[in-house]
Amino acid sequence: MARNTQVAADTAAPAITQILARFVASHPAKGWSDAVEHEAHRTFYNWLGCAIGAARHEAAEAAVSAVQLLQPSPQATVLGRPEKVDMASAALVNGITSHTFDFDDTHLKTIIHPAGPVASAVLALAEHSGSSGRDVVDALVLGIDVACRIGNVMYPDHYDRGWHITGSTGMLGAAAGCARLLRLDEWRTAMALGIAASQPVGLREQFGTMTKPFHPGGAARAGLMSALLASRGFTASPRALEAPRGFVQVASDKRAWNEATDELGQRFEISFNTYKPFACGIVIHPSIDACVQLKARGVTPDQLERIELRVHPLVLELTGKKEPKDGLQGKFSVYHGCAVGLIHGRAGEDEFSDAVVNDPLVVETRRKVNATVDDSINEESVQVTAVLKDGRRIDVGVDHAIGSLQNPLSDQQLEAKFHALVEPLLGAAKARDITRACWGLASQPDVRALTALCRP
Amino acid sequence: MARNTQVAADTAAPAITQILARFVASHPAKGWSDAVEHEAHRTFYNWLGCAIGAARHEAAEAAVSAVQLLQPSPQATVLGRPEKVDMASAALVNGITSHTFDFDDTHLKTIIHPAGPVASAVLALAEHSGSSGRDVVDALVLGIDVACRIGNVMYPDHYDRGWHITGSTGMLGAAAGCARLLRLDEWRTAMALGIAASQPVGLREQFGTMTKPFHPGGAARAGLMSALLASRGFTASPRALEAPRGFVQVASDKRAWNEATDELGQRFEISFNTYKPFACGIVIHPSIDACVQLKARGVTPDQLERIELRVHPLVLELTGKKEPKDGLQGKFSVYHGCAVGLIHGRAGEDEFSDAVVNDPLVVETRRKVNATVDDSINEESVQVTAVLKDGRRIDVGVDHAIGSLQNPLSDQQLEAKFHALVEPLLGAAKARDITRACWGLASQPDVRALTALCRP
Repeated sequence: MARNTQVAADTAAPAITQILARFVASHPAKGWSDAVEHEAHRTFYNWLGCAIGAARHEAAEAAVSAVQLLQPSPQATVLGRPEKVDMASAALVNGITSHTFDFDDTHLKTIIHPAGPVASAVLALAEHSGSSGRDVVDALVLGIDVACRIGNVMYPDHYDRGWHITGSTGMLGAAAGCARLLRLDEWRTAMALGIAASQPVGLREQFGTMTKPFHPGGAARAGLMSALLASRGFTASPRALEAPRGFVQVASDKRAWNEATDELGQRFEISFNTYKPFACGIVIHPSIDACVQLKARGVTPDQLERIELRVHPLVLELTGKKEPKDGLQGKFSVYHGCAVGLIHGRAGEDEFSDAVVNDPLVVETRRKVNATVDDSINEESVQVTAVLKDGRRIDVGVDHAIGSLQNPLSDQQLEAKFHALVEPLLGAAKARDITRACWGLASQPDVRALTALCRP
Repeated sequence: MARNTQVAADTAAPAITQILARFVASHPAKGWSDAVEHEAHRTFYNWLGCAIGAARHEAAEAAVSAVQLLQPSPQATVLGRPEKVDMASAALVNGITSHTFDFDDTHLKTIIHPAGPVASAVLALAEHSGSSGRDVVDALVLGIDVACRIGNVMYPDHYDRGWHITGSTGMLGAAAGCARLLRLDEWRTAMALGIAASQPVGLREQFGTMTKPFHPGGAARAGLMSALLASRGFTASPRALEAPRGFVQVASDKRAWNEATDELGQRFEISFNTYKPFACGIVIHPSIDACVQLKARGVTPDQLERIELRVHPLVLELTGKKEPKDGLQGKFSVYHGCAVGLIHGRAGEDEFSDAVVNDPLVVETRRKVNATVDDSINEESVQVTAVLKDGRRIDVGVDHAIGSLQNPLSDQQLEAKFHALVEPLLGAAKARDITRACWGLASQPDVRALTALCRP
């Protein structure tokens, strides 16, 4: 019987499980620059808006309904809804809703959406524990650092195999964040990471179904439970991440161990987090941005003969759906994204409703969009040409789409996005109160003041 | 950036997710032979004894303590203990305890321990629902069939990469069994399998820690929650198992699709289930069996110069620990297994206690055991030679160890094993009552009569 593995096992990997555990357990509170601290607040705020905004989506309804079958204790808030459920279930549901609109944060180096698993676990535990905002921010920064560093170790091979990397590194970030919040020592933090290492959640085949947003939710729950188990003495391998049959080597042939530890405690991966202006996968954003620019330059759908896109190969691989039938499928269609960008000048959640996806003008415009793969174009860029019926050709090149690291959303743009998501569920006054509480999160003595605002 | 995967994606895989879902949703109750029906009862009974037997192990204490932090509703029994917890947490804890002693059932073709994930999920849901024993047996047979068939598709490559296959197929078996118990239709059963497909649980690096038995527990919980979510309309890819970025292709380069469907509904994988006479990994069993035979032939430790083993390579890979320090490590030491076999004539849970592992006679005897890898020996066999101080050489060859498919434990031997596990926790009278209830499981109108017996 053949017993060969694809790639030789690396038996000399550094002890990253324990190194990261020590870091999480011992790094000082707010042990980073004001810029990192501010980015943590932006990450949290953006995540919260996404979670509240999707609170009445059918995925949320189904998830809450299933969780209620457990008759959970009211420990933590389902964001944007009246229910409270046990903290593990709250982590699950809030992780689902935060990713349901594909509108959450993105660590561009790895395409991880780190707040979904990490913040969902941390806030649920913090609410039940009555933690301070300071402790939540610390747990968020450190948890995201762990998830994204492990992502850096494995990306792109891990993702290319078919793992939805948000959920298959997020359980580690959630475990780290919760371990920090529980003030676990270095050994127990290593155990929490170890228990979590056995529970990656996420396959790319699920894109376009409710199980895609389930991934950060499942990772949040897994990480939270791993930390709770470790706090009670449950054990795991202290080399669960790096051993030959540990998580990284099992799930990836790329094993850039140095990414786990380089500049640890000095460079924080949350610094590289970005926030989407458009409610869909990041790979379509340059194309939408270009079409919004076309509209700004006066191009209207009736003038249009066709739109030609030259895109990175991943754009069609991930979002090549030619004829989306509903809002969710629309998020996986670069053609739809371009159509609404040109017609509406934006691509928020409303532009990915079933109604807009099936609007005849949108359908007609979508069919005028052609996309060609160009290996020389990177993932953040696009070349778009609008060919008009009168023969004119209008070129728009986007190097870094709005919302990228080089061209980030401003705090004011984040607030506008937040209000558009939250006001329909909680009203303008509460949205303003939550905004204020979020910008001042680190000085909140008890996060329950904030979570109380997040219920209707 | 290189974006090559190791093995070409198989875009023409058969629709096994839907085929298995149809089978689970529509196969008739007791749609199999009396032999299969009897094996299902043996599987359930053996699993229950293992779970009860480990109810006071430190892994169980830690897990129950962590689960109590969720303040769970008393929906389902923690087997062998007074607590009731929510059904998802009961599935988790009972899955952990059933595998804690490494004494549970084994599907030898894949080294899957199928009852841990499947029965733990099914019984917890059945208890909360007040299901009949008939429904539980049906769910168990069908759930185990799904888990082991997917195991057959991927084994050995999937296991060789480092996945602990019990937990990384068990979530599918648990989802299938719970979907059956919930009477989900074919579509929703496919959704349950799809949601579960994103949640494999288990790395071989965890062997020797509490996270090894966590794997079937985590898989049980994941599968149960997947079925609950599907029952409430949560969606997943209907090709989650077989698509290029679905579970099988992401987690294995071996993809023997026919194993999922050959003789479906005629050949039942539970027929190939076996039960351990020794409380440790199956690969050591031939060696222990041989040493028990040496004792029966009059060999005593003081006569012994050395013992020579010729073993399959996997024996030393999995259980090559030369100097175990405690009971758990002893389970991963073929040397310790041989020593207790020769000294005590058995290797139950007691022989893997810390005290026995550190007993001077056991330590001395263990050090006399030498093992050599021999590629010509299969996993079920061993060649053992005892070399005595007086120069005699006694050879014992084992082709099929006691407890194997060819040399199974009898029902009476299973009962003896059950009583040894259960009496210390629940007493002899309850052990007898549970035994009677288990042999008559299929005719129990409500499994709560059985679960009530499983509390002190």
